[in-house]
Amino acid sequence: MIFEEDYFSMIKIGIDCNGKLYDKDSSIQNISVYDTKRFGKMLVLDGDIMLSEYDEFVYHEMITHMPLNTHPNPKRVLIVGGGDGGTIREVSKHSSVEEIILCEIDSEVVSVSKEFFPTLSSGFDNEKVKIVFEDGFKFLSNYNDYFDLIITDSSEPVGVAAELFKENYFKLIKKALKRDGIMVSQSETPWLRKDVLKNITMDISKVFSKVETYTAFILLYPSGFWTFTFASDSYSLHNFDLKKSGEIEKTCKYYNSKIHKASLALPNFLKNIVTNR
Amino acid sequence: MIFEEDYFSMIKIGIDCNGKLYDKDSSIQNISVYDTKRFGKMLVLDGDIMLSEYDEFVYHEMITHMPLNTHPNPKRVLIVGGGDGGTIREVSKHSSVEEIILCEIDSEVVSVSKEFFPTLSSGFDNEKVKIVFEDGFKFLSNYNDYFDLIITDSSEPVGVAAELFKENYFKLIKKALKRDGIMVSQSETPWLRKDVLKNITMDISKVFSKVETYTAFILLYPSGFWTFTFASDSYSLHNFDLKKSGEIEKTCKYYNSKIHKASLALPNFLKNIVTNR
Repeated sequence: MIFEEDYFSMIKIGIDCNGKLYDKDSSIQNISVYDTKRFGKMLVLDGDIMLSEYDEFVYHEMITHMPLNTHPNPKRVLIVGGGDGGTIREVSKHSSVEEIILCEIDSEVVSVSKEFFPTLSSGFDNEKVKIVFEDGFKFLSNYNDYFDLIITDSSEPVGVAAELFKENYFKLIKKALKRDGIMVSQSETPWLRKDVLKNITMDISKVFSKVETYTAFILLYPSGFWTFTFASDSYSLHNFDLKKSGEIEKTCKYYNSKIHKASLALPNFLKNIVTNR
Repeated sequence: MIFEEDYFSMIKIGIDCNGKLYDKDSSIQNISVYDTKRFGKMLVLDGDIMLSEYDEFVYHEMITHMPLNTHPNPKRVLIVGGGDGGTIREVSKHSSVEEIILCEIDSEVVSVSKEFFPTLSSGFDNEKVKIVFEDGFKFLSNYNDYFDLIITDSSEPVGVAAELFKENYFKLIKKALKRDGIMVSQSETPWLRKDVLKNITMDISKVFSKVETYTAFILLYPSGFWTFTFASDSYSLHNFDLKKSGEIEKTCKYYNSKIHKASLALPNFLKNIVTNR
């Protein structure tokens, strides 16, 4: 069988699969799991590929180690979304971190991950981890001046996750962060989602003084060219802890100190999208 | 209509098109041109996308400015393949270059480009350019110690272009280059063509002492993650002319000095492919 996804009516892709292992509507969204022929198992939410076992390491390493090697002493980390557990797995590599809260709106994503993706959900066993099944907005509104890092590890900015890419959300994040806190969000592809990326960057820039875009090659995300947006009032990704990143890179399949720097270099057309705002 | 391409039986893609503008077998290969809905006109050889007007700048800027800003005084440049003209267009930006020879096996690629892709084929008008319709192997065997840079701008290493990725070809290139000459070749994607990339790197390493892999985001090439391989006995891409690259980047949509450096940083899994050989 072929799994098919349509990227914004621009490119359709088809992935050869041995079969579908799971397909159920939770109260939030459709969750399905495919057994692909070449990329291991694949998690799909509302028809969009979230991850495959073959390439998930890129996204999870890049959304965590970039900010965590930049903050001098990250202790409290909040992940909004990320019910598959991959982001927790990577955050857990940082010994300074004392508390990891995962706020996931859909408890069934966690169950499905525990059943089908043990290499991702292994992170849930860490005793520093607390899982809360709640809407990110509601959860954040209870916190002031608390987190060192908030990672928005969400699906694309339509449907369930649409509100997680707007100014009001970024304001809540800022309130929940310590004064020198950091936020990171996935921010789509410049090849096919230029306006979305532009708007996210603009909205974050209204709330934080330093906003930096970085990039990664992700096979199964639309176009293979993905961006992340970092924001802080205190830190810059350019000034990161080379010693810490040198240690972390030994555990990584994508991230290393050179990639840390390199991912901040933007092609001219991307620079135009995120700076002409 | 939908244009479909199957990437090595791993991922199929479909691109929405208004129609097919050209479809003819030359003596060498099938040549077709599609009018896509989102990416402008698209050139297809034997069923593989060669370029679209929307993203061709990445490939052409990266295969030319990386070596040309590294060689201190490039005068004679040979392009093997590249009948669309995009590589010539970019090489022509370098005022030190006195002679550009394009050796293209299929004259009809040039005619089709002149008819459908004026922004690419405009380079052919440069009086420094000489076009030769011949097999790259045969052409190279006539030259000794002549070129400063040889760019292999070919389709993928099957069919027509298969021989352009093997040790004997790289030996011919070395002979045709001056002693401090540079060669560059596109070298496929590490996501889907790990073994091909490994073999190309290995074969080039048998012939040149310095071999460097660099990367770029190319929308319509399989996986969006593309590599190029640079080789020389004298120069390294890490030591490039910052002043020259600063001038060239003003004319580019992708390349800039920071991207020059950044494209040399390799994710761990790619480093393993090109160094464990």
